Amino acid sequence: MNTRLERFRVITDCKKFKKVFDLDDPRSKGLPNGMIKSEELDNIQMGDSFSLGSKKYLVLPCSLQDYIMEYMERKTQIIYPKDAGYITLNLDLAPGQKVGEAGTGSGALTAIFSRAVGPEGLVYTYERRPDFADMILRNLEGCQAYDNILFHNQALEKEELPEGLDAFFLDMKSPWEILPQVDQALKPGGRIGFLLPTTNQVTRIISILQSSGYFIQEVAEILRRGYKPNPERLRPQDVMTAHTGYLIFACRLKKRKEGE
Amino acid sequence: MNTRLERFRVITDCKKFKKVFDLDDPRSKGLPNGMIKSEELDNIQMGDSFSLGSKKYLVLPCSLQDYIMEYMERKTQIIYPKDAGYITLNLDLAPGQKVGEAGTGSGALTAIFSRAVGPEGLVYTYERRPDFADMILRNLEGCQAYDNILFHNQALEKEELPEGLDAFFLDMKSPWEILPQVDQALKPGGRIGFLLPTTNQVTRIISILQSSGYFIQEVAEILRRGYKPNPERLRPQDVMTAHTGYLIFACRLKKRKEGE
Amino acid sequence: MNTRLERFRVITDCKKFKKVFDLDDPRSKGLPNGMIKSEELDNIQMGDSFSLGSKKYLVLPCSLQDYIMEYMERKTQIIYPKDAGYITLNLDLAPGQKVGEAGTGSGALTAIFSRAVGPEGLVYTYERRPDFADMILRNLEGCQAYDNILFHNQALEKEELPEGLDAFFLDMKSPWEILPQVDQALKPGGRIGFLLPTTNQVTRIISILQSSGYFIQEVAEILRRGYKPNPERLRPQDVMTAHTGYLIFACRLKKRKEGE
Amino acid sequence: MNTRLERFRVITDCKKFKKVFDLDDPRSKGLPNGMIKSEELDNIQMGDSFSLGSKKYLVLPCSLQDYIMEYMERKTQIIYPKDAGYITLNLDLAPGQKVGEAGTGSGALTAIFSRAVGPEGLVYTYERRPDFADMILRNLEGCQAYDNILFHNQALEKEELPEGLDAFFLDMKSPWEILPQVDQALKPGGRIGFLLPTTNQVTRIISILQSSGYFIQEVAEILRRGYKPNPERLRPQDVMTAHTGYLIFACRLKKRKEGE
Repeated sequence: MNTRLERFRVITDCKKFKKVFDLDDPRSKGLPNGMIKSEELDNIQMGDSFSLGSKKYLVLPCSLQDYIMEYMERKTQIIYPKDAGYITLNLDLAPGQKVGEAGTGSGALTAIFSRAVGPEGLVYTYERRPDFADMILRNLEGCQAYDNILFHNQALEKEELPEGLDAFFLDMKSPWEILPQVDQALKPGGRIGFLLPTTNQVTRIISILQSSGYFIQEVAEILRRGYKPNPERLRPQDVMTAHTGYLIFACRLKKRKEGE
Repeated sequence: MNTRLERFRVITDCKKFKKVFDLDDPRSKGLPNGMIKSEELDNIQMGDSFSLGSKKYLVLPCSLQDYIMEYMERKTQIIYPKDAGYITLNLDLAPGQKVGEAGTGSGALTAIFSRAVGPEGLVYTYERRPDFADMILRNLEGCQAYDNILFHNQALEKEELPEGLDAFFLDMKSPWEILPQVDQALKPGGRIGFLLPTTNQVTRIISILQSSGYFIQEVAEILRRGYKPNPERLRPQDVMTAHTGYLIFACRLKKRKEGE
Repeated sequence: MNTRLERFRVITDCKKFKKVFDLDDPRSKGLPNGMIKSEELDNIQMGDSFSLGSKKYLVLPCSLQDYIMEYMERKTQIIYPKDAGYITLNLDLAPGQKVGEAGTGSGALTAIFSRAVGPEGLVYTYERRPDFADMILRNLEGCQAYDNILFHNQALEKEELPEGLDAFFLDMKSPWEILPQVDQALKPGGRIGFLLPTTNQVTRIISILQSSGYFIQEVAEILRRGYKPNPERLRPQDVMTAHTGYLIFACRLKKRKEGE
Repeated sequence: MNTRLERFRVITDCKKFKKVFDLDDPRSKGLPNGMIKSEELDNIQMGDSFSLGSKKYLVLPCSLQDYIMEYMERKTQIIYPKDAGYITLNLDLAPGQKVGEAGTGSGALTAIFSRAVGPEGLVYTYERRPDFADMILRNLEGCQAYDNILFHNQALEKEELPEGLDAFFLDMKSPWEILPQVDQALKPGGRIGFLLPTTNQVTRIISILQSSGYFIQEVAEILRRGYKPNPERLRPQDVMTAHTGYLIFACRLKKRKEGE
């Protein structure tokens, strides 16, 4: 048995989602010359392989991360796994919590939050652009394990947010515009996070947070450097993503009453 | 109200755990000149502050990450948040799953796994060094939300692992020594991950995985670069952790029978 | 006067070299729709601009680095400025010194060494591939300020190297093969440097150097992260070169005689 | 002969400078328990070793970089080799050129510029702080190969800079304050460079350069990641310098006359 699989093809299976991609061209997502019917894949076990013409295919599970990176439709930059894992930890998300998010974007982080808070938790997510709604629903339907996402296709300024949220994440151009609404929703000690691409936005939000009753936990960036998995020639890949955004995390202090 | 909190002190509260640390010296963990009794802290709300002598203190929740980085006892290098979040995503952990880990070390990743698989999931963790047991139990007791950790203070070679594990993570010097046991335990398509500090270990494990029926998903390293949160002088911190370890992720293929 | 020059075009001038490239497409190197004759450029001063049809062009000097990155012909990966500057410093090159290099490759580092040792110095460079010779000579003619480069189109194994070299740099697949020759050429205390893309090569050369009478000064990698020069939206570029090679520097110890 | 030198000690020799440091503690710079006289070192050749009591010492040449990092007195942050090599290349310095610098600081970059422009070139360097003068002169005397440095212990605002400089480098808090003087000194097409630690300074200087007749070549940062030179356990060092400063390079355009 040849276990060097670099030249094979891979079929993934993420919940209702099931597609094929070519390892040589990770962007290709259909069975290029195949004629296998979707239901036939049901008989093939995870980790198994089969032949179709002269090519060999491999069936592997589609992780949530695979799904986000390979299959999700995008209209904007999505949040990368390197950032998503760190965000989930820094917001201290746990099963049963209530977390908010704006904007929804393509729904990548929404799906990760949904999993982190689990079936007993809730994700409130807000996206103001009406033309994003169908894409978001399709994307979330493809991976949603739990019925715990409340999607709002409205500008947050006009919304009344639920109170007592454990955490909130803002991935939008001008997050300061909806900070008053988030303020009301976050429980005391609740965590707030931001992803912002420019240093100008970072200095602005830090300044606003410091004068609005937040304790800044950290400002950081996360870099991922991939390696070519060749044991005789181990080396980093030639290029890498140099920047997605700066991450800012802060803690909500107790609100002061007037005169206190 | 002065919301510039840099000079204040912080009290954290993580489950049964409750301690105080000095922001100027984040390693200090006691109330240095204070006389406040532990139960008095119960009356102070999260995000609130109080005075003690001439100093002002601030009460903030202790996140799981804070707890790991500030309070956990360590006998070896712990797994950092930058890596832990990425590991959880790459192992595709979700509520209800069964995940294995060896060695337990100080229990940092164990705690993160416990949260990721939630109350319906299970974490099997193995640590061969007998002198680590008490520390591990103390560390896990401090943060354990769920009764889902099965700690084994034994060398994995002599253990019979449960079958059908969704994922397994190995953080040990010679992970190839226990690979046959992990093989038996992992379900087909299951994910395996490694953290290894040297390139020599990486080339060795890649070579073994490729000839043992695994599909290598990725080899990568995650770097975190912190910034000083000063809006008038935004800049990265002077030094950073340059290396914790290389991360390797692979997928278990279906076992072949002899002659197949 | 509009000094926002992003949309303009740039004409460079490096010694005998004079070309035009389009800022929007830095790979384009000819005057796309122009009809200006090469000699007309002689009347235009550095830092000046002129119009041609509806487009505006800008005349700037071509630095050695511009020349290497934009105009040099390449048959292999060239040594990048981020590495070249660091190599020059670590080999401690200064005017009047004698430095060796193998292989020549496209001649990028050769040109930088030529400048570093100046008109009183000498660069001995060796390239075994006969089909590289013409390209190398063309590349060096385009920028060579000094008549101080001795190019040898031969395998170093068969060559007798000059003695008393101050430093030597090896950029080749199997540098250990010619180490005995370099040994004879390097003066005691002389510096040797290597650029190697894989960790397997690095561990091998370190091991050989340690048992061959060298003192290892450092092993390092240099990363360059570019930023978009927009004062209202300062941020790193989206992608960066993640790897060119590992740099190894060592010092030649005094040779021991038998029985000493 | 044992060529594993990790436990030995090293004696360096940079021009008039000659000192000893302990490899185990690279900060130690004296012969700790020795009684060797400085002139006795003259009899020991480069790359040679000798014994003193139970310890073994090794004599190696002191490179300019060693001298800067190990022996130079500092009153402020010096410019690191990772940046210095890149700056020299980006300013396109070559033998015979005239380059300016402000402020001198401890003189590290001054020494590197002195070498880059060689005996036929000139370095004009300006430092306004009177208490820096003696340290700078001592530092430069220790390594100065060429009589080509013109040190001015004055604020540049009051100085009349020489005209026709090929390049200028500014390493100071508010470089915009002396930009008009540098403008007059730089030849058309001449290169200007800056090292600035904060993003606020970077956005400010970019904005000023764009409206002052400069073409911005690049904004970048250079990172150096060191490795432990152990062939059986190759891995990056635990910590690294995360930030020294952002580098900005621009080209001087031809001055416009009024009405042009």
